[in-house]
Amino acid sequence: MQRWKLTIEYDGGPFSGWQRQDSTISSVQQALEDAIAAFCANTVTVHVAGRTDAGVHAHGQVAHADLDFRGRTYAPFEVVKGLNAHLRPHPVCVLAARPVPETFHARFDAVEKLYTYTLLNRGAPPALDRSRVWHVFTLLDIPAMKRAAGFLLGRHDFSTFRDADCQAKSPIRTLDALDIETAPYDPEGGTVIRIHARARSFLHHQVRNMIGSLRLVGEGKWTPEDLRAALEAKDRTRGGQTAPAQGLCLMRVMYPEEA
Amino acid sequence: MQRWKLTIEYDGGPFSGWQRQDSTISSVQQALEDAIAAFCANTVTVHVAGRTDAGVHAHGQVAHADLDFRGRTYAPFEVVKGLNAHLRPHPVCVLAARPVPETFHARFDAVEKLYTYTLLNRGAPPALDRSRVWHVFTLLDIPAMKRAAGFLLGRHDFSTFRDADCQAKSPIRTLDALDIETAPYDPEGGTVIRIHARARSFLHHQVRNMIGSLRLVGEGKWTPEDLRAALEAKDRTRGGQTAPAQGLCLMRVMYPEEA
Repeated sequence: MQRWKLTIEYDGGPFSGWQRQDSTISSVQQALEDAIAAFCANTVTVHVAGRTDAGVHAHGQVAHADLDFRGRTYAPFEVVKGLNAHLRPHPVCVLAARPVPETFHARFDAVEKLYTYTLLNRGAPPALDRSRVWHVFTLLDIPAMKRAAGFLLGRHDFSTFRDADCQAKSPIRTLDALDIETAPYDPEGGTVIRIHARARSFLHHQVRNMIGSLRLVGEGKWTPEDLRAALEAKDRTRGGQTAPAQGLCLMRVMYPEEA
Repeated sequence: MQRWKLTIEYDGGPFSGWQRQDSTISSVQQALEDAIAAFCANTVTVHVAGRTDAGVHAHGQVAHADLDFRGRTYAPFEVVKGLNAHLRPHPVCVLAARPVPETFHARFDAVEKLYTYTLLNRGAPPALDRSRVWHVFTLLDIPAMKRAAGFLLGRHDFSTFRDADCQAKSPIRTLDALDIETAPYDPEGGTVIRIHARARSFLHHQVRNMIGSLRLVGEGKWTPEDLRAALEAKDRTRGGQTAPAQGLCLMRVMYPEEA
């Protein structure tokens, strides 16, 4: 048995989320474990860096699993190819596979995660990227959103942006980056806004809850200082709505050897 | 009756293409004409700048139609909103509507079109952008592709890249730009390659056929000079395969007033 680190991309749309539930519900974990069972002929539990919610996408999720090739040796590219052959019907693929020491743990060893949230800011609803963006038709005030994002940086009690179901022991987290970039989207003046959030770890729904409040600032319903006051209140009822899942994508998980 | 210029975005995936066929086949034109019939209570034929094939997307298609509001007056944003309300089930939306003189014609007045073709260059198949890219797993030689693209610029007989069904009178076209840009795609070294093709007009399948040949150059199966020789042969059987539809997107159509 060898432990493997797997980098995974998926379209969260058709899934109930990362986590395996009962077998009638389609999860990314189930799709991956089924592919491993078909390729390796052993049944494994895959451990993941970040359990994404229903509808949330990943460009660079990381997981680990102990694979039993029954004495055969496979090069990393063969593991990638073999697993992807069995994943084919699902919008899930393995980007890379690396043998790692058996002490490696995808979740506990992660030192940083990068999520990107995408908003489409224009009057018309999305046709091409329906399943990948949050459509906001009010013209957003980007400088105000950037000022507000600045108040969230650093070490804080993020209770205002924490889901009621969050199982973390502490609401204290350190937000290392919350960068907002904009780009033209279509020939009629639509803008795509990408918000990149980077931290060692996040509370449940933290990114989506921060985005919901940043939207209020962008719409002029809140000042940047209102967002700071909401943070300082440490009270979920003072935060904005939870931004929808489809705009969120886990871009990358970093480990000590890469830092 | 007032003639309106409509800018349209759509996901080509679920459609048989732009053009209305019989009513059992889903076309973008049919979806738009049905929305107009529901909003305006008149039946119209929509005329389009470029009839896209099945699976081809558009960020900035342009069409015109004569809309009868039965004496009522609508502002452009109301036309956009009204049509989009009726388009909702389909991945089609109207980005902008502008009243134009009744001499305006979306197809005959267009002075330039910009298409973008997207390739995903990495070992693993796409999970997130399956319906938007052509997956090429051989590492492509971008400088060679750029040299080859240079041979296609300017005024040529493009018979080598012309579909057998093309109804244009002449195979002569002037290619104003064929720019190749690359960007990192995922954390494991995957690259997205976007090829931007700009011309007054294109032959049927011209962009996809040029891309199929550029791929051969990128893979090292052809030299850039082989592509030049293929162009000069003016013979479709000398060209590469037709690149698949889902990588192609009509980005923009330009008219004299914008040039």
